[in-house]
Amino acid sequence: MEGKTFLRSLCLISSGFLLLLVFRSSPNFPSSNNTTTTKNLLDCSLNSPWCTSKNRFQPKPKPDYLQNHPNLIITNHETRIPTHPLDPLTVQEIKKTRSILLSYPPISTSPFTVHTLVLEEPDKHLVLNWVKTEPLPPRQASAIILTNDGSHVLTIDLDLNRVIRSVPGPVSGYPMMTIEDMTSATWAPLSDVNFNRTILARGIDLVDLACLPISTGWFGKKEEKRRLIKIQCYSMQDTANFYMRPIEGLTVLLDMDTKEVVEISDNRSDIPLPKSANTEYRYSRLNKNTHTYFKKLVNPISIEQPKGPSFTIDDGHVVNWANWVFHLKPDPRAGVVISRVVIHDPDSGTARNVMYKGLTSELFVPYMDPTDAWYFKTYMDAGEYGFGLQAMPLDPLNDCPRNARYMDGVFAAADGMPFVRSNMICVFERYAGDISWRHAESPITGLEIREVRPKVTLVVRMAASVANYDYIVDWEFQTDGLIRVKVGLSGILMVKGTSYDNMNQVPKEEDLYGTLLSENVIGVIHDHYITFYLDMDVDGSNNSFVKVNLVREDTSPGESPRRSYLKAHRHVAKTEKDAQIQFKLYDPSEFHVINPSKETRLGNPVGYKVVPAGTAASLLDHKDPPQARGAFTNNQIWVTPYNRSEQWAGGLFVYQSQGEDTLAVWSEKDRPIENKDIVLWYTLGFHHVPCQEDFPIMPTVSSSFDIKPVNFFESNPVLGIPPNVENDLPVCKAAASA
Amino acid sequence: MEGKTFLRSLCLISSGFLLLLVFRSSPNFPSSNNTTTTKNLLDCSLNSPWCTSKNRFQPKPKPDYLQNHPNLIITNHETRIPTHPLDPLTVQEIKKTRSILLSYPPISTSPFTVHTLVLEEPDKHLVLNWVKTEPLPPRQASAIILTNDGSHVLTIDLDLNRVIRSVPGPVSGYPMMTIEDMTSATWAPLSDVNFNRTILARGIDLVDLACLPISTGWFGKKEEKRRLIKIQCYSMQDTANFYMRPIEGLTVLLDMDTKEVVEISDNRSDIPLPKSANTEYRYSRLNKNTHTYFKKLVNPISIEQPKGPSFTIDDGHVVNWANWVFHLKPDPRAGVVISRVVIHDPDSGTARNVMYKGLTSELFVPYMDPTDAWYFKTYMDAGEYGFGLQAMPLDPLNDCPRNARYMDGVFAAADGMPFVRSNMICVFERYAGDISWRHAESPITGLEIREVRPKVTLVVRMAASVANYDYIVDWEFQTDGLIRVKVGLSGILMVKGTSYDNMNQVPKEEDLYGTLLSENVIGVIHDHYITFYLDMDVDGSNNSFVKVNLVREDTSPGESPRRSYLKAHRHVAKTEKDAQIQFKLYDPSEFHVINPSKETRLGNPVGYKVVPAGTAASLLDHKDPPQARGAFTNNQIWVTPYNRSEQWAGGLFVYQSQGEDTLAVWSEKDRPIENKDIVLWYTLGFHHVPCQEDFPIMPTVSSSFDIKPVNFFESNPVLGIPPNVENDLPVCKAAASA
Repeated sequence: MEGKTFLRSLCLISSGFLLLLVFRSSPNFPSSNNTTTTKNLLDCSLNSPWCTSKNRFQPKPKPDYLQNHPNLIITNHETRIPTHPLDPLTVQEIKKTRSILLSYPPISTSPFTVHTLVLEEPDKHLVLNWVKTEPLPPRQASAIILTNDGSHVLTIDLDLNRVIRSVPGPVSGYPMMTIEDMTSATWAPLSDVNFNRTILARGIDLVDLACLPISTGWFGKKEEKRRLIKIQCYSMQDTANFYMRPIEGLTVLLDMDTKEVVEISDNRSDIPLPKSANTEYRYSRLNKNTHTYFKKLVNPISIEQPKGPSFTIDDGHVVNWANWVFHLKPDPRAGVVISRVVIHDPDSGTARNVMYKGLTSELFVPYMDPTDAWYFKTYMDAGEYGFGLQAMPLDPLNDCPRNARYMDGVFAAADGMPFVRSNMICVFERYAGDISWRHAESPITGLEIREVRPKVTLVVRMAASVANYDYIVDWEFQTDGLIRVKVGLSGILMVKGTSYDNMNQVPKEEDLYGTLLSENVIGVIHDHYITFYLDMDVDGSNNSFVKVNLVREDTSPGESPRRSYLKAHRHVAKTEKDAQIQFKLYDPSEFHVINPSKETRLGNPVGYKVVPAGTAASLLDHKDPPQARGAFTNNQIWVTPYNRSEQWAGGLFVYQSQGEDTLAVWSEKDRPIENKDIVLWYTLGFHHVPCQEDFPIMPTVSSSFDIKPVNFFESNPVLGIPPNVENDLPVCKAAASA
Repeated sequence: MEGKTFLRSLCLISSGFLLLLVFRSSPNFPSSNNTTTTKNLLDCSLNSPWCTSKNRFQPKPKPDYLQNHPNLIITNHETRIPTHPLDPLTVQEIKKTRSILLSYPPISTSPFTVHTLVLEEPDKHLVLNWVKTEPLPPRQASAIILTNDGSHVLTIDLDLNRVIRSVPGPVSGYPMMTIEDMTSATWAPLSDVNFNRTILARGIDLVDLACLPISTGWFGKKEEKRRLIKIQCYSMQDTANFYMRPIEGLTVLLDMDTKEVVEISDNRSDIPLPKSANTEYRYSRLNKNTHTYFKKLVNPISIEQPKGPSFTIDDGHVVNWANWVFHLKPDPRAGVVISRVVIHDPDSGTARNVMYKGLTSELFVPYMDPTDAWYFKTYMDAGEYGFGLQAMPLDPLNDCPRNARYMDGVFAAADGMPFVRSNMICVFERYAGDISWRHAESPITGLEIREVRPKVTLVVRMAASVANYDYIVDWEFQTDGLIRVKVGLSGILMVKGTSYDNMNQVPKEEDLYGTLLSENVIGVIHDHYITFYLDMDVDGSNNSFVKVNLVREDTSPGESPRRSYLKAHRHVAKTEKDAQIQFKLYDPSEFHVINPSKETRLGNPVGYKVVPAGTAASLLDHKDPPQARGAFTNNQIWVTPYNRSEQWAGGLFVYQSQGEDTLAVWSEKDRPIENKDIVLWYTLGFHHVPCQEDFPIMPTVSSSFDIKPVNFFESNPVLGIPPNVENDLPVCKAAASA
């Protein structure tokens, strides 16, 4: 099918679909209701309103090379039963929860939408004490449901077959959008005659229209008491990369529940629609001349492991690799959740706790343009859009190497029915040619020694596509006990239309708020903050946070030929405010989480440290509404006492929240954190000043931080890893077609 | 041969060797001369005094799997002739230079040692204008020679067959030590009866002794006018890891030329020799139980490329890979020198200049202990020890993956004769499972798009073992135009003996200057600074340095619902002081090198930026003698106008220098740098507070920075790279023995 025709057909079909879905799932029926019902649409809607997913309980067959492998992840989701206290809700459990909810008022009596439906994790002590031979703790579900009465936070006991707790949601702040919220919102303006007129006046064919649902943030009282969203649109004429063709200055304010157009701003019709030229990025559509150059110059290369990977994923979720064991699950909000992280100690022969739970808690992505169509772009991608919901199936061989294994996500749609996001997470062993440790003796000593050990790591990866942007999140486990958490940014910029097509037209004093990337296209400056929740349990739950500050000491006259040296001062944080950390290059510290009850053989406290790498700090005014909501980025590190209800740094109800329930607010309570079960929060940051290389799609930019043992082991725990020898390595030949 | 016997024999043989070498090569013959001459020793000495190297002109045969490969590096050094203006001196050229020098007074009339003998690179404009079909510019050698008269900097023209320039060295500061300086110095104290008596008094057998040559730094007038070195010793009884068994408090001050013991300090004979238990790290000597755990859990894994690598190394030194071309050579001081870095532009179809020359200019490693036996440990590893001289042959399959190719170094020994350091540099393509760029459409837009490109890079690596420490230096080239410079630290700590074997014995107020790592062993806190010389030539030699400062702008009341946003302010540096940069997290900037005469199609200045990652800053008092010598670490970035004589950040003559010829001094001249041929200097830093995991050998710690295109290309230059497809990838099976 030719590209444009295909896209148009797709749009029209989706449009029909989605209006139907709105009808079925919205608590408030849309006023203008022109649904088309056909048999196959109804069939689809029997299962779930989200029909754009083709991955129901029968995911596509795995590619051949993954078929007969012993480490294949269980994919029969229909029959799967949980085997670990932290296993996510199964298809059957989601269905059961839904049926319980359907007979529970007000859900039984009112239209409703399910915004969250996940495992209510058992109390930590139950999980820690559980052993595999014992039955699971009671299985419970946690649901956030929106009805005509507002939001409800419910706990459903699946053994007791009933709702055991129901709490109303807060006055301000709404739950995470459903996929159905987002998709239906993008099409809703088409029901508005004035909107259509505006589009046509811009010279754009309605079938070329692609719109995005943009969270509104919160900027004052007039935005309260209803779920609002802003819609901005693009032209997908002659390109799949519609993001590069913004209809600049056109913003529709929409009521997300009624789908009513509240306001249309159409301010910059003077700005031309940027051209489609050079925006395409799909390999099949590129001019062949573009890629011939690379095709012939890079020979096939692959990470090969013909004996198969060294890890297992037991019972679907427990990853066992080298000296590590942890529980891995997909989550609609956080994406990846890593739990019960345990490492084998070669000295004691025991398995030791490192971290109870680690996840991406929230993102904050403020754009740096205060003008009308841009000021509100201050995304919080987890709490508003669902970082896991946006994690699409990974592309085997490209998103992850050939030796990767994949895990599906099982989530609930807006109607409470389960759906499967296939291949949402991959797990693979990485050998990148790096060195775990080495030493060669030099001619100085004359000893003939050269001992080098290759570094092999285990990577857990997902990639979330929050509309234009793609976030690649890696948890990488090293055999030496280090965990590297890395975030890569790729995808497509959110750009702004401009009348300029060359910098020589721009008056010297005019602020473009970004960089001219192509004719009539500005890449607007923005930041990315990704805040991680790290419930460290170093050899047990009760830990302390220690700032090891490196301070210059000056020697006394005559004491030494040296005037100065660095000394490490240890400060144990007593309360939360002691642990609000901003990094300073000229006042450096290490940040340890220690177990004050455990010492090494030599009397050092056992610990892990958080090691920052390149990062950025938010410079926005703390009283700026977006920064108040994103106040969890005011410091790079925070430490709080463990509290079940404090997992989402921007609050549980982030959408249109005012910042009343963020990590920054909790930390101000200044609770004791010494020798307590503590949670460490770390924020990775990026300032992004776009450049032409980011057009039409961005090369990946990454940053990371490490969680690293510090006097946790008695000595180097990988002293014993063997070197590579030729006779062990794979025997390979080139593919016939390569 | 059993370990200890082997070591003892080795020591005795080496000892004999080295005393002989001292006799032959030192400008001042040692006073107590008990050389043993045998025929084979003399044979060896006919070639070069450095007999510990077994890699003469016939390096060991390459392993089988490297044999018949088209990309094999030329190894017939005896007959090799230069083919590029920047090619290092060949074996023949070094011999020729030596013969010219031997008839040049005062070398012809006095004992001498050759401290540097390398190519005198032709003037930059000659290199830039040279084309392959033309003859090379005149070949010249640059030599630094020490005679009884002091040091001499000489230029030798190999076509004219004569010395064309001779300049005396500075009054203070000595040339880089030769390997012979270092090795002979470690054995020299054995000629001193008092020294031997001291060792015996410590209860140590002389055959177990291993000593290290420690540069003295400079701490005052009394250390001037002779080449001094400090020797500290260890016991290698029952371990190859003698570094963990320091004879604490014993320091010998030695005259490096006369080998005369100037002073013996023996202060802490109360401190016991740490035990050898658990110090061994050689795989063959470890308790098999230690490594069985890992052996069985990690299946073989390899980067495989059965069609061979995609790069060529033309004429031995010009690397051609994907869209990159550059000249690569080993250097005795810098290690790796990358020159004439050029990238293919897919838009224009042309090759464009990026960097004229990049190298590791200097290292500064101050230890943070001001006491008697430690205060002077403030190493400058390039200018004192020779970062390239210390780069040992890489271990195939472990230092570099199986698909790597190797390059030998050809250097001059102290007598001016050439020797070959085989496999000193490796080059390989890396596929680590990473993603070059990606985008998947989410259900929000409903488009069925998932485009992902794997990231394949080219790595140039060397590993220098400066006695205990191992530095792994990678230059990694990405197809998107980014160059990542990464330094990994591994090897063995320099440790301090202590009487404590548990922290509970340490009085609360006592400063250990580090961490107790094992019984009686302290890992002393220290910093590492690695300063890179980056002669950027972005699309030509005349460039400017631009600081793009991100500053918070506050909106006026009523202007916007936002109170604040970030704006990029561009500051073009006029002179050197404008470009002395200390990083500030809360005052962030980008650092661009632009070509002010070139713009993109859209009118943006073409440029590259330096992107810092995790780093550390030196906090020492600027007036502290070590910091005065290491003053090039006072900022993280400096920019200077190109000047042939300013390549070594710590000065040309670093040994015992007083800091009078460092980058910090040059930069204070505040010369104009706008639209000039400029050099950017970047310092990578690490604070290292040792922990028990660093014992007995350290897991690698890495940090890096990037050199990255910013509006250099008109658009993403890797839009055209193809995705991986199954049919192109290698066909592998497990090795029979795996």
